[in-house]
Amino acid sequence: MSDERAAPRRLERMEDLVSLCARRGFIFQSSEIYGGINGFWDYGPLGTELKNNLKALWWQRVVRERPDVEGIDSAIIAHPRTWEASGHVEHFSDPMVDCRACKKRFRADQLADAGKCSAREGSSEHDLTEPRSFNLMLRTWIGASEDAAAVAFLRAETCQPIFNDFKRVREAARQKIPFGIAQIGKAFRNEINPRNFTFRSREFEQAELEFFCHPSERERWFEHWLEQRLRFHREIGFDDEHLRTRPHEANELAHYARAAVDVEFLFPFGWQEIEGIHDRGDWDLSRHAEYSGKDLGVTDPETKEHYVPMVIETSVGIDRTCLALLVNAWAEEALEDGESRIVMRFHPALAPVKAAVLPLSKKLAEPAHALEAELRRYMNVFYDDAGNIGRRYRRQDEAGTPFCVTIDFESADDGKATVRDRDSMSQQRVPLEGIAAFLRERVGLAS
Amino acid sequence: MSDERAAPRRLERMEDLVSLCARRGFIFQSSEIYGGINGFWDYGPLGTELKNNLKALWWQRVVRERPDVEGIDSAIIAHPRTWEASGHVEHFSDPMVDCRACKKRFRADQLADAGKCSAREGSSEHDLTEPRSFNLMLRTWIGASEDAAAVAFLRAETCQPIFNDFKRVREAARQKIPFGIAQIGKAFRNEINPRNFTFRSREFEQAELEFFCHPSERERWFEHWLEQRLRFHREIGFDDEHLRTRPHEANELAHYARAAVDVEFLFPFGWQEIEGIHDRGDWDLSRHAEYSGKDLGVTDPETKEHYVPMVIETSVGIDRTCLALLVNAWAEEALEDGESRIVMRFHPALAPVKAAVLPLSKKLAEPAHALEAELRRYMNVFYDDAGNIGRRYRRQDEAGTPFCVTIDFESADDGKATVRDRDSMSQQRVPLEGIAAFLRERVGLAS
Repeated sequence: MSDERAAPRRLERMEDLVSLCARRGFIFQSSEIYGGINGFWDYGPLGTELKNNLKALWWQRVVRERPDVEGIDSAIIAHPRTWEASGHVEHFSDPMVDCRACKKRFRADQLADAGKCSAREGSSEHDLTEPRSFNLMLRTWIGASEDAAAVAFLRAETCQPIFNDFKRVREAARQKIPFGIAQIGKAFRNEINPRNFTFRSREFEQAELEFFCHPSERERWFEHWLEQRLRFHREIGFDDEHLRTRPHEANELAHYARAAVDVEFLFPFGWQEIEGIHDRGDWDLSRHAEYSGKDLGVTDPETKEHYVPMVIETSVGIDRTCLALLVNAWAEEALEDGESRIVMRFHPALAPVKAAVLPLSKKLAEPAHALEAELRRYMNVFYDDAGNIGRRYRRQDEAGTPFCVTIDFESADDGKATVRDRDSMSQQRVPLEGIAAFLRERVGLAS
Repeated sequence: MSDERAAPRRLERMEDLVSLCARRGFIFQSSEIYGGINGFWDYGPLGTELKNNLKALWWQRVVRERPDVEGIDSAIIAHPRTWEASGHVEHFSDPMVDCRACKKRFRADQLADAGKCSAREGSSEHDLTEPRSFNLMLRTWIGASEDAAAVAFLRAETCQPIFNDFKRVREAARQKIPFGIAQIGKAFRNEINPRNFTFRSREFEQAELEFFCHPSERERWFEHWLEQRLRFHREIGFDDEHLRTRPHEANELAHYARAAVDVEFLFPFGWQEIEGIHDRGDWDLSRHAEYSGKDLGVTDPETKEHYVPMVIETSVGIDRTCLALLVNAWAEEALEDGESRIVMRFHPALAPVKAAVLPLSKKLAEPAHALEAELRRYMNVFYDDAGNIGRRYRRQDEAGTPFCVTIDFESADDGKATVRDRDSMSQQRVPLEGIAAFLRERVGLAS
């Protein structure tokens, strides 16, 4: 596309995005009317559609299109032994220090963010205890009594229930190694210091795949899934300047991991992980076998070898990827008339609203509503008859709507409407009866 | 369809369904390898697709097709004041009694289920305390300290965050009264006595709509939504013998409710509620306004009247409706050869797997895999080349797959495959290049 205008400006200050997200109903603080609750976010109408579109695409690419992947949807609360086996009860903690003066608590590795001590005016320095470990899992109690026997945890990651269900799913789905089990769902971590908008939250959504393979094939499958996942991030619009991989150094690896690569996106607050590809070895299945007393091994039908499969994991943050999509889409552009616009340039397949129907006058409500009703059968549509047409285009640009369809007084005569493209702002007349097909062709993904 | 066979037998014993669900991977106990956890269930590959199809259809009918409904996706954990305003902290409890002898705890209104006292062999009777109330919300702590200030609750229903977000969503989405806000998500209740498979669980999924209207229009919208929701349940296959409405008597109504109708399904364990349609009045918005100090009223643009909208709620249990779909689909049929089959007669649009590709011989893998890959772009497909064809049909009948496509040695010659219909078991030859279109036409919903 040739474009003579000045290059669009990308997002630099997170505040600009945070305020747009609240104002337009993408994402805002949970329980806003009560002053919010730190680390929890609600998705509004536009944000929910964006997130649902992202999840549906992941499910399509990772589960539905793959004969070798099964999807599950497990409970958030699992048997507590799950988290003993996984090591979370013992090890999933941050080092914390307390200030004896102001009674506040801080992460020992983030003391630079601690601020001044409110109890010691003569000194800015806190009176800190030695670090002690603070478990990040959220606890609750199940059943009628609040004793130790009834304690349960909200899952800290969606993958452990996959390991719990490995044997059942393999048998029920008649799968053979190599194959994977995937799920999308909520997880919870009691982050001491939630920050960077939705990036580090206490409640978040993950999409995880655990792919089980023979030990001799782990490198091959690691490479395969790394490549698949990078292709996915490129497909949703992340370019090479904003997407990179970062292999973990040997001293960063979890003790059970042989290899790990972070997929990072360049946010205004720096390069940050949005997905991890991990070779978890046989750690999880072996631990769950040990703690449950169940044999979680498999027998090779040809060689009769009995072995515990190795696991290649892909773990993507849905909220983090949504945040990257929002950052990536945001652009401020100078317009010919000297004004400027904010436009959210989502991939059409991920855009929350696919088309807006805009009658130039309220007198055109009848044909406009007829078109709206037709389009609504196929896609998410917004109808707007308020304000001048320029302002209505601006509103759709901010929502990231790829197409605006304007019904004007000529539409009744020539049977056509004007379709405006969000990015190029070019307009073309399209016959009314062909608009649904025109749009459907342009708002799907290449398959 | 004419059918000379004996009438199919419907599900009578829940155990038959529970075992099929575990064996085929619809639904099974969470953390099975650890002995399970009472009141928590995992959805396997078939159950996840069934549940996702149900949720997608609800979203399509209640949100996407409606210009007057907005969808949101809120955090499971909200500000604790939310649950004070809603009345849950004070009132959401069951009466409990303890046995002083065996130390067990029971619901005072379910003592018939209490069983014998294990500590008093000479007597079958428990030594019960007076009833006291036991709050059903699950509690946790947020932040670094476990004190009263940091207590939080897992939401007991998905609707309260909708009221929290009412003002923000109305303004962001530029909606005017009447309009609704909907969401699908997890909720948690510490049921003392989970039972009837997934029917009464501690973790469950709801799909709720809160529709806000002028006080003068509440009856009209109550009737509208009751009719819409009944239409939905009929659309997914529930007939008049297994679906009924039950209006609440005046003495059953919550103190704030003017009207309530349960939608009930006839399970093997009796008529039970799967959805409730409630006129909640202005209770929720008024309480949240009082507790937050925010004005949650609206001003009529014409009359300038300022008022708190009335709320009509539709609240459907996703797990309960899935269970009803499973019960409703189950049939045992006598076959001509004297054998019988279990067949899950799901509506094709809800069926977890739409088509199975079955090569008659492993030598036919190439054309069969080519067809599988083509179909997989449009629908969920299963490939099975193991066992005789009759056994493979039986497996697909149990999974509820509406169509089996058999590739045989004639397919290479005549370019056709045999498409078998799950319910009638009739077969027809269809040209290979037309199979995708043939199936797509039959596995969607009438729109």
